Amino acid sequence: MNYQVKSRIWIEADDQILLGEGRVRLLRAIEEHGSLSRASKQLNISYKKAWRLIDAVNKAAKEPVTTSSVGGVGGGGASLTPYGRDLVNAFETLNKNCWKFLDQQLSQTNF
Amino acid sequence: MNYQVKSRIWIEADDQILLGEGRVRLLRAIEEHGSLSRASKQLNISYKKAWRLIDAVNKAAKEPVTTSSVGGVGGGGASLTPYGRDLVNAFETLNKNCWKFLDQQLSQTNF
Repeated sequence: MNYQVKSRIWIEADDQILLGEGRVRLLRAIEEHGSLSRASKQLNISYKKAWRLIDAVNKAAKEPVTTSSVGGVGGGGASLTPYGRDLVNAFETLNKNCWKFLDQQLSQTNF
Repeated sequence: MNYQVKSRIWIEADDQILLGEGRVRLLRAIEEHGSLSRASKQLNISYKKAWRLIDAVNKAAKEPVTTSSVGGVGGGGASLTPYGRDLVNAFETLNKNCWKFLDQQLSQTNF
């Protein structure tokens, strides 16, 4: 039997949640599908919930994280801004580095 | 406005939760009060819930984390084993090191 250390991280801006694992999954789905509606379907959440999450992210962030275009054939689209992509990448890097760090720290104990 | 990275860690043993922040608070309260009953009162949880949590900790851990004595003046007591104390200390050290590590990692980004 071995002990394992697990972690969950999130980023706050002025005590508001900016990004957590769920929001990052949604942003990645927007990047993949180019649409908030398709992203919400992939994650099995309502469009309304997805819209509120993205609105909260954009309100908490220093710069816009997503952009949306309205109308045209097939309706509007949504995508990540360069800032949004960098932020999502930074979150994922922080997360992975945190896991590695904790594994390493635990391995230095006798448990 | 500054971003802050927050984290929550927990330790698992064979996919069972061994220790998280709540369990550590309970173990610290047992150490302080020498009694599961008084510890549960301090944390505002039922004795039954506290007992179940401690039972789960002892079942998941490689060695007993608490001991209890029955009867005597004032009823039975509970205390941490040396292994339990070391484990709680290790958890708290891991947690603090994780916070420091994440702060440092975030400060190396441009966000």
